[in-house]
Amino acid sequence: MASFAERLATAVRQKGTPTLVGIDPRFEQLPPSLQTDSSLAGQAAAFEKFSCELIDAIADLVAVIKPQAAFYEQLGPLGMAALAKTVSYAREKGLLVILDCKRGDIGSTAEAYAKAYLGDVSAWGADCLTVSPYLGDDSLTPFVDQCTATDSGIFVLVKTSNPGSGTLQDLSIDGKTIYRRMAEHVESLAAATKAPGQQYGAVGAVVGATYPEQLSELREVMPSAWLLVPGFGSQGGGPKDVAAAFDADGLGGLINNSRGLNFAFAKEPYKSTYGAARWQDASAAATRDMIAALAAETTAGRLA
Amino acid sequence: MASFAERLATAVRQKGTPTLVGIDPRFEQLPPSLQTDSSLAGQAAAFEKFSCELIDAIADLVAVIKPQAAFYEQLGPLGMAALAKTVSYAREKGLLVILDCKRGDIGSTAEAYAKAYLGDVSAWGADCLTVSPYLGDDSLTPFVDQCTATDSGIFVLVKTSNPGSGTLQDLSIDGKTIYRRMAEHVESLAAATKAPGQQYGAVGAVVGATYPEQLSELREVMPSAWLLVPGFGSQGGGPKDVAAAFDADGLGGLINNSRGLNFAFAKEPYKSTYGAARWQDASAAATRDMIAALAAETTAGRLA
Repeated sequence: MASFAERLATAVRQKGTPTLVGIDPRFEQLPPSLQTDSSLAGQAAAFEKFSCELIDAIADLVAVIKPQAAFYEQLGPLGMAALAKTVSYAREKGLLVILDCKRGDIGSTAEAYAKAYLGDVSAWGADCLTVSPYLGDDSLTPFVDQCTATDSGIFVLVKTSNPGSGTLQDLSIDGKTIYRRMAEHVESLAAATKAPGQQYGAVGAVVGATYPEQLSELREVMPSAWLLVPGFGSQGGGPKDVAAAFDADGLGGLINNSRGLNFAFAKEPYKSTYGAARWQDASAAATRDMIAALAAETTAGRLA
Repeated sequence: MASFAERLATAVRQKGTPTLVGIDPRFEQLPPSLQTDSSLAGQAAAFEKFSCELIDAIADLVAVIKPQAAFYEQLGPLGMAALAKTVSYAREKGLLVILDCKRGDIGSTAEAYAKAYLGDVSAWGADCLTVSPYLGDDSLTPFVDQCTATDSGIFVLVKTSNPGSGTLQDLSIDGKTIYRRMAEHVESLAAATKAPGQQYGAVGAVVGATYPEQLSELREVMPSAWLLVPGFGSQGGGPKDVAAAFDADGLGGLINNSRGLNFAFAKEPYKSTYGAARWQDASAAATRDMIAALAAETTAGRLA
């Protein structure tokens, strides 16, 4: 199998867009037709149906999805089964899956997480994971090793999109911020995991669209790392904010939108045109609009 | 219901020990009688049996257990079902459960994690979670709110036990380390979540036994926070290394041992006395020995 970075580049080129569809099921925001049974089992069944129908709606449009584990975990083991089904269904449809679970632990425990989630041989079978780096450099090693062994990838939290991300990440030591130090470490891991002739390695970074200046700085610091950029849409980031994520060919950045695409049916202009009865069409239309906006205002326009 | 900190203090006093039994099932290290079926379903059944029998073996000896989610997650949704059973079984036996899953995310996603795991109303029903703080202060708020709403608790990673914990946590800004800054924030959250007349709040800190000097420093910085101290036993920490975790009454510290208690049957002196056939007795004996060692060399001796 090709490396994760190669598969990602190929898939993004093929679909012609860096749009990443996040899947964040929230029971009370689902279309009313899916809110019929609020028991844990009923909610889990609704999450599975919602996730799979959303995948059907956007599978021809984008290359990658990012299910957010937290929402499925909220429903206990039944929710986890819905998450597993979501991952396998997306992969059957030819999509790459980044599981957003921000795991991180020491030594052999990190290894257990890596083996749990990464690659075809794992129980969850994701292509890629998000990973939290508070425990230090050695806590990332088992994930990187598993990426190499299974042609999978990770995105390490570097500069997150939330208002309080600065309390730790922006602290500066000898003129260098924590997020920049973390970025330099990610770059070293990315460079070390490049397949021959490739621009990007198996290790990428999460950098929020809500901090455009830092995004620009971090694109320079990490020339070998794919950037996963959350914060587009509901959190306030727009196409111009994320333009710095891409290289000259329109590669190197994945722009995530979750709520804005998941629940498009509840907001104009999609609400009037489609409404809850045609929520899948609303999600597809909102995805198309995001693809067009990114193509118009960033180098992603060169992918098509 | 009493607050988590009150329930914890009561339970630790009642059992007379701060020993925390970690549950880290690893299929290849289980007693051979539990290694009969290596399919995912077979491994999940073995994890459930191992976890529940271990709980039976130590329920009369200690107040708290700490299942490590990573090992159960490795088995996919079936493993998560075994984890849920482990949590509910331990609580039926009157034990407090700290679920070690080091979750952390932004805003409403952190809220989903908090609602997933904390308190009787949650799908998982744990008393307490471990939480990773890389995303910043605001990422902890939803967990703290849920602690207050459900009389549950969290332990925030401050100074972890792994060799590489220093790469981020020991960085120093204006003479103050990251772990110390984090500790000061934990102390503010702990102080703000104290029940009337209590010494400790709902927010505690993870501080590794492998760094005794930092443990001593951090006990002073966080007078309102319970400390969860991993790294005892297999990772090299001994009773003298963890003595600083406790207050004068022997409270305020929980000393975790996982592998050393889980797989005691495979090591002397328990191997000769009990062996794999009586692995539960080996775990109980190793737990008793740890309790005695802590009582002899720390203020935990005053609990009895």
